Amino acid sequence: MRSLVLIGHGSHLNGESAGAVYRYAELLRGRGLFDEVIEGYWKEEPSLRQVLKTTASTDITVIPMFISEGYFTETVIPREMGLGHQGPVPEGGVARVIGGRTVRYTLPYGVHPAMTDVILARAHEALPDASPQDTALIVLGHGTTRNENSSRVIYQNADRLRDSGHFAEVHALFLDEDPKVGTWPEVVKAPRVVVVPFFASEGWHTLETIPEDMGLTGTVTAFPDHPHGPQQVFYAKPVGTHAAVADVVLHLAEEARGAGGQGDPERGHEAAWQTFLERARAGLRVGEVLLTPELGVFELRHMLDEGLPGGELVTLVTPEGVRDRTRVTDGGDHRPVHTLRTLPRGWRAVLNEADLRRAVHYLYPAVVEETYAHSCHALRHTPWATTARRQTGIYAKVQKATPAQVEHVAQEVCSGCLRTRLWAGERLTFTFLDRVPGGLPCAEACTFLVAEVREEVSGKRGAGHGHSH
Amino acid sequence: MRSLVLIGHGSHLNGESAGAVYRYAELLRGRGLFDEVIEGYWKEEPSLRQVLKTTASTDITVIPMFISEGYFTETVIPREMGLGHQGPVPEGGVARVIGGRTVRYTLPYGVHPAMTDVILARAHEALPDASPQDTALIVLGHGTTRNENSSRVIYQNADRLRDSGHFAEVHALFLDEDPKVGTWPEVVKAPRVVVVPFFASEGWHTLETIPEDMGLTGTVTAFPDHPHGPQQVFYAKPVGTHAAVADVVLHLAEEARGAGGQGDPERGHEAAWQTFLERARAGLRVGEVLLTPELGVFELRHMLDEGLPGGELVTLVTPEGVRDRTRVTDGGDHRPVHTLRTLPRGWRAVLNEADLRRAVHYLYPAVVEETYAHSCHALRHTPWATTARRQTGIYAKVQKATPAQVEHVAQEVCSGCLRTRLWAGERLTFTFLDRVPGGLPCAEACTFLVAEVREEVSGKRGAGHGHSH
Repeated sequence: MRSLVLIGHGSHLNGESAGAVYRYAELLRGRGLFDEVIEGYWKEEPSLRQVLKTTASTDITVIPMFISEGYFTETVIPREMGLGHQGPVPEGGVARVIGGRTVRYTLPYGVHPAMTDVILARAHEALPDASPQDTALIVLGHGTTRNENSSRVIYQNADRLRDSGHFAEVHALFLDEDPKVGTWPEVVKAPRVVVVPFFASEGWHTLETIPEDMGLTGTVTAFPDHPHGPQQVFYAKPVGTHAAVADVVLHLAEEARGAGGQGDPERGHEAAWQTFLERARAGLRVGEVLLTPELGVFELRHMLDEGLPGGELVTLVTPEGVRDRTRVTDGGDHRPVHTLRTLPRGWRAVLNEADLRRAVHYLYPAVVEETYAHSCHALRHTPWATTARRQTGIYAKVQKATPAQVEHVAQEVCSGCLRTRLWAGERLTFTFLDRVPGGLPCAEACTFLVAEVREEVSGKRGAGHGHSH
Repeated sequence: MRSLVLIGHGSHLNGESAGAVYRYAELLRGRGLFDEVIEGYWKEEPSLRQVLKTTASTDITVIPMFISEGYFTETVIPREMGLGHQGPVPEGGVARVIGGRTVRYTLPYGVHPAMTDVILARAHEALPDASPQDTALIVLGHGTTRNENSSRVIYQNADRLRDSGHFAEVHALFLDEDPKVGTWPEVVKAPRVVVVPFFASEGWHTLETIPEDMGLTGTVTAFPDHPHGPQQVFYAKPVGTHAAVADVVLHLAEEARGAGGQGDPERGHEAAWQTFLERARAGLRVGEVLLTPELGVFELRHMLDEGLPGGELVTLVTPEGVRDRTRVTDGGDHRPVHTLRTLPRGWRAVLNEADLRRAVHYLYPAVVEETYAHSCHALRHTPWATTARRQTGIYAKVQKATPAQVEHVAQEVCSGCLRTRLWAGERLTFTFLDRVPGGLPCAEACTFLVAEVREEVSGKRGAGHGHSH
């Protein structure tokens, strides 16, 4: 049995951020090469701290879904996941045994040589009849002073594509370092030019800065009076959103696996879910969710919608449907923390037992595993001081927060959360497994609270107390 | 059967505001002269728009718990309660028949002649052996240019107290108009001086401005070198918080009643509560509350606390206990709107049937009456335009809000509320009386939403979107 874990950045504010990771997870589930594909995030749930607990097997491959190496892939992800590794990840990844699970952590997908194929695929989408006679290719990177690997990967891809002979010329150009993208009319000679942005997703750079720097007006732009004669530019979509990235992920996973054996079901995880299912078969309330067994399937809905005829509610039939419906509040706000008491109403889900597990995983990520562990006295609490000490970068300053500041922010942020703050000394004797719906443990401060404490320390947390990230 | 309704201002931000009205309601309940004593507020619940619906009888006396006449007593309260009256209220009050109820609306307690006794009581508290030989009394008013009655009442009280012969001298002095309080060393000759602030409650004026203007350092201050010789000042508490105000309220109520007859139980109200109790006897969920019948009594608790042993919860045994426990969120924030999904956890209430009614009235004011009316197709909806048109003073500007602005604010404010916005065209087919816990009607925009729309129109509603009143 094998688990694949895809790691994204996520966002406390914006629901779009996790979308790309969702799509790859679904593509990879479709391939059927892993028994499960789980998503984890820095700023959403399951968090980097929780995601390993939510995997069902003892053989885990973790892929950072980032376009380049850097602070997240080398510092944040390994640290938060407890991989006992910091700094550049070697080719083939690193492997650790953590709590009985073999965890392999790979390079980000963007540095894998197979990305050359993705660039080529994007180029052919933009200009299907690109030819070595008259077509130039620009591989366009961000470029940065913070990580030299970032531009090296662009050059390597350009080299491979030049060697492939598919194009008359291949250039590596950058937004933020030389050779700059604005120089293209001087360096590119071919009459047809395909531009492939080596970016993770559509965004400000692909939609604004690149078109502006290059003078593009759409997917195809004509330049009649250029130094090397008339030119036509075909602007491709960013590589990071191409379906072929799923193949790159599989390459990475296979290379990381090496001669590794087959994993087994992880016993604690299985025990947690069997306990949950046993309760569920008799009907159960978990947080704000009412779970009712019905002739071999299960119905989930908001507790406040109990008793409503099914026809009054939107009926969902997949775990992904539940995930998407409950990612926003009834007011349309993003829900980075799923245990906040803001579960939307107006829906029901009808699911079989396997889908129920996945739906509950999406509804309340890591809650079944953590609650079961708590009931077995096996949930480790991380006090605030330890959480704070671990922080780096812009979050390092939370180490300056006084206990009173932390408690003040927690009073506001956590009072709307179902979880009981064990890490702050709160006591939880009965959980939803004991049929107390609101009994959910909180083992450590989440990144949302950490971010709010940072705002407090920075003096930016006014009456409105929203943080901006 | 007779109902007494006490009207306070209330606050969207501050839980203290309603406290004084609560205390008088409890004192007056203790007197037993009315079958019920109900509190209503402009900025809390039950609101001025709802409070009449929550009264059980057809004979209602409404007392504005204000120290002086003015905008609230003459404009806001009569308008919001639908009394068909605007402007100064005659002595003896006004009476109207509204929806089968006889409603008498009186002057505010502060203008009643019996306040003279309250001033005297406060004076004797501050200086029990005050004597006509050596003691002067200062009746201290705010004074204002907006309502001349305000100072007239102070003069009338001073005149009556002068005539009573209890003091060597009696002076009427003011904070904001002549004769100013700062002139007291010139005008007051007696060696002992009692100062009684004619204010509704302790606050900035009684705690800061008056002591500063008079040079007071505590409840007793000595002035050895004054124009008329050494003087000692005894500073009394404000009149508005004296228990004897309850007697003033009863005087007002009796005078308003005149030759009025005895009221009857209001049938719609009684039907609503009988329907509710019938459901409750079989166990019921109302909003976030779980209601369980237990051997002749009822247990109430937060739904999320279902299944917790009683010993894990704070046990409440009075409706007032429930009221006070649920007036703030788990984060300690004031809850001006009771149907927001922020009901605190951690408590249970054990109550008999009569107390259950009052506790549910406090938990979800007007919800039983409005939901029952809705289920009988008798709940009138007030569209936004009508609500906006009614607004005056600083809220008149909500009339400028576009439908999109109103909807934008409502999306944010109302999405956390249990109620379904019938006034905005939302549909509610099943209510908690049909055993759908979250099914609660909203007949019109509440003052909280009106205030938020005002902030939006004023451009003051940022990401933090808290209004400041």
